Amino acid sequence: MKALRPERVVLVGSSTMTEEIGMTHPDLFRGIQENMAGFKGTVRVVDIDDPTPIEGDLAVIALPPDESLTWAGKCGEAGVSAIIQITGGFTAVQRATYNGHIERYGFRLLGPNSIMGYLDTGIGLITAFNEGIAPAKGPSSFIVQSGGVGAAVLDTAISEGCGISRFAFVGDKIDIDDEDLLMDLLEDPETKAIGMYVEGVKDGRSFVETASKVSAVKPIVALKGGISKEGARRARSHTASVSGSDDIFDIALKEAGIIRVPSIQSLIHTSVALANQPPLEGRRIAIVSNVGGPAILGADAVVRAGLKMARPVEETVEQVTSKYPGVEMINPIDLIADADGERYKHVLKAVLADETVDGVIVINQMKSCFFSPGDVDGILEALKGSSKPVVDVIPGGTDFRTLRGRFIEAGIPAYTDPSHAVEALEALHSYSLVLKGEYA
Amino acid sequence: MKALRPERVVLVGSSTMTEEIGMTHPDLFRGIQENMAGFKGTVRVVDIDDPTPIEGDLAVIALPPDESLTWAGKCGEAGVSAIIQITGGFTAVQRATYNGHIERYGFRLLGPNSIMGYLDTGIGLITAFNEGIAPAKGPSSFIVQSGGVGAAVLDTAISEGCGISRFAFVGDKIDIDDEDLLMDLLEDPETKAIGMYVEGVKDGRSFVETASKVSAVKPIVALKGGISKEGARRARSHTASVSGSDDIFDIALKEAGIIRVPSIQSLIHTSVALANQPPLEGRRIAIVSNVGGPAILGADAVVRAGLKMARPVEETVEQVTSKYPGVEMINPIDLIADADGERYKHVLKAVLADETVDGVIVINQMKSCFFSPGDVDGILEALKGSSKPVVDVIPGGTDFRTLRGRFIEAGIPAYTDPSHAVEALEALHSYSLVLKGEYA
Repeated sequence: MKALRPERVVLVGSSTMTEEIGMTHPDLFRGIQENMAGFKGTVRVVDIDDPTPIEGDLAVIALPPDESLTWAGKCGEAGVSAIIQITGGFTAVQRATYNGHIERYGFRLLGPNSIMGYLDTGIGLITAFNEGIAPAKGPSSFIVQSGGVGAAVLDTAISEGCGISRFAFVGDKIDIDDEDLLMDLLEDPETKAIGMYVEGVKDGRSFVETASKVSAVKPIVALKGGISKEGARRARSHTASVSGSDDIFDIALKEAGIIRVPSIQSLIHTSVALANQPPLEGRRIAIVSNVGGPAILGADAVVRAGLKMARPVEETVEQVTSKYPGVEMINPIDLIADADGERYKHVLKAVLADETVDGVIVINQMKSCFFSPGDVDGILEALKGSSKPVVDVIPGGTDFRTLRGRFIEAGIPAYTDPSHAVEALEALHSYSLVLKGEYA
Repeated sequence: MKALRPERVVLVGSSTMTEEIGMTHPDLFRGIQENMAGFKGTVRVVDIDDPTPIEGDLAVIALPPDESLTWAGKCGEAGVSAIIQITGGFTAVQRATYNGHIERYGFRLLGPNSIMGYLDTGIGLITAFNEGIAPAKGPSSFIVQSGGVGAAVLDTAISEGCGISRFAFVGDKIDIDDEDLLMDLLEDPETKAIGMYVEGVKDGRSFVETASKVSAVKPIVALKGGISKEGARRARSHTASVSGSDDIFDIALKEAGIIRVPSIQSLIHTSVALANQPPLEGRRIAIVSNVGGPAILGADAVVRAGLKMARPVEETVEQVTSKYPGVEMINPIDLIADADGERYKHVLKAVLADETVDGVIVINQMKSCFFSPGDVDGILEALKGSSKPVVDVIPGGTDFRTLRGRFIEAGIPAYTDPSHAVEALEALHSYSLVLKGEYA
């Protein structure tokens, strides 16, 4: 929405105030100022200890509840279109006061308890306060109802080089909510897939309607927190969320065309796949690997996920074995540990051209093999222009970090465990069902 | 076994020979030589292009099958006690010839198709060929039937700073098998837990008997490859493994007191937990966190795993709230984003002393919080000497890499996702059942 695409941002905080238990702290205020250095418009800082006039379209407030309400009023007077309320800890009465301000001044509010605020890499807007929080530009966007979960997703995205378009921390969402942001991301040309962390939604029926519109165009994947009664109890206190039974939520998400995942890690893995790869139209998967064991585990995971191992046609078998008689054409296809980029390229081209293959998992391990970073070229050459989804696995820790950048840059999601690659393909298949109206 | 604890190692290979498709390559031969630089005994290199006499207790052979058999015979003549056959590709006839050598000369054989051979960090024995393959000394040992899976585990262990005692790549195991190695690890004072990757075992009944003996003393966790018919077909070709139905395998593992896991990642996560933490005697878990969302997801995962969220007694609640009235004592316990080491220490001490708490998940996030590396001190101080199992979660990618070293050094397993921490506690609880004879 336009309110979150400001030209002039005003940061409201204090360079001295610290709460006993709470987020207000001079370091937080300073951190936001530093992260806003790359913003493409103007940034004004209003330190309430020695205030200057409020001039801006978007105000970011980082103060305790009472002071925040006072200054939100002043921002309203000054005509801001939106406020991002970083800090939380608002009582029901204080929330009502905020609502009064919204009605009176007509600004939009993200938060309170947003914690990390809003990121838009297109305009350099970063209202988060920690160091090293700026992600690369890219096709994934997120809407999260927890500073912690959101920050973990963001930190992982930064660490793995996965690009982000927009990232919204909705907090207690007393005004701007998931629906507003989904509609906004629907319009964002950079956003190719949307990841969500949800503790509860206000109006389930309305949410399903809006999400259905969006998921018909862009894939949405969601992680729900507060499934257990213990988790739900904490969620009530955390973001004032009341969620109904988990089964009902599950049905609602399916109806909305939202793909559900069980963990933070899965949320990241599937979002990146959905943002970079086409839907998986059928269930038949080929695995092309330079190691036996991880390929076997991949095949096990494929079958466990309800997908199928493809049976390459005679022509494909012939094409491979005529050049590489030592490669036994049983899927998972083991290229043997000395496979180089050339061997991968030849086999992958044949496999991708095979009509009985719907999607491919490439496994390229370095340790225990003769695979070197230069061999990635051959793989990427074979994958160029493929209309079928492909995901990559680099088993191991240090090797994963050595190679994954090349794949991510080329839009090929890369994982360290075969089971993660299968989870990604499962999501890509679910999205093909969403598009066909066969998911619910 | 003594055969794998040599004083003199002889490496047999060729500085010129390369197989069309296969592992024999001068680089592999050279790589092993380099990795053996830290061996505490003597190392002789026998290059078959210009051979010197074989002098050693243990021979490591990296040649094509026919040449390997020739040189295995010569090693037998020279009186070696053991051979590690790195390279594979042996036909049934060639395997039979190897067996003949074993009978005739009485040496023990690891492999063929071992690929990475054997690591014993206690004596600096590393017969793997890649660079950067030397793990730190530590309490986890592994027995793996796949070069790829083993190398992925090893690479992750190195990358995450998890220490290793011994690591055996059994390959086609025509002589030394899982049982031999399990009995060996039972005797190894450094080994506190054993991780296995298995495609098949020769004699199920005997394996269960041996494993039962070992699991009564040291925890064993296993990943099985070739569960699906497609995976099993590849396993037959990969390591000549024939496995029965997965259900039978599952029952056998339970009987053997072996804890089963579904992925490479799980194998590593649970092995490290079992090697460093005591068994989880009850099911009641407390979560102490500086972030709400990840703690809620942790609670959801606890309940999903069949564990329970503890309800701290009044005394514990009093102890915490008297000092920190802002901390609401609902489990998962949210210390709020500004929690420092001191607050963690106070709350963790109270929670660990609570008799209704059996195990603890600590979550300390940096991004979205004010947690800094120095705050780890407070946490570790509180955990010192705890008789209850504790695992740590550092949500995010870069932050995980910043902090995890401190925890690992102190013997506290650290994970990036709450669900991994719960998986670890689940394994620690399973092991308490194994010890009580209530697991099967």
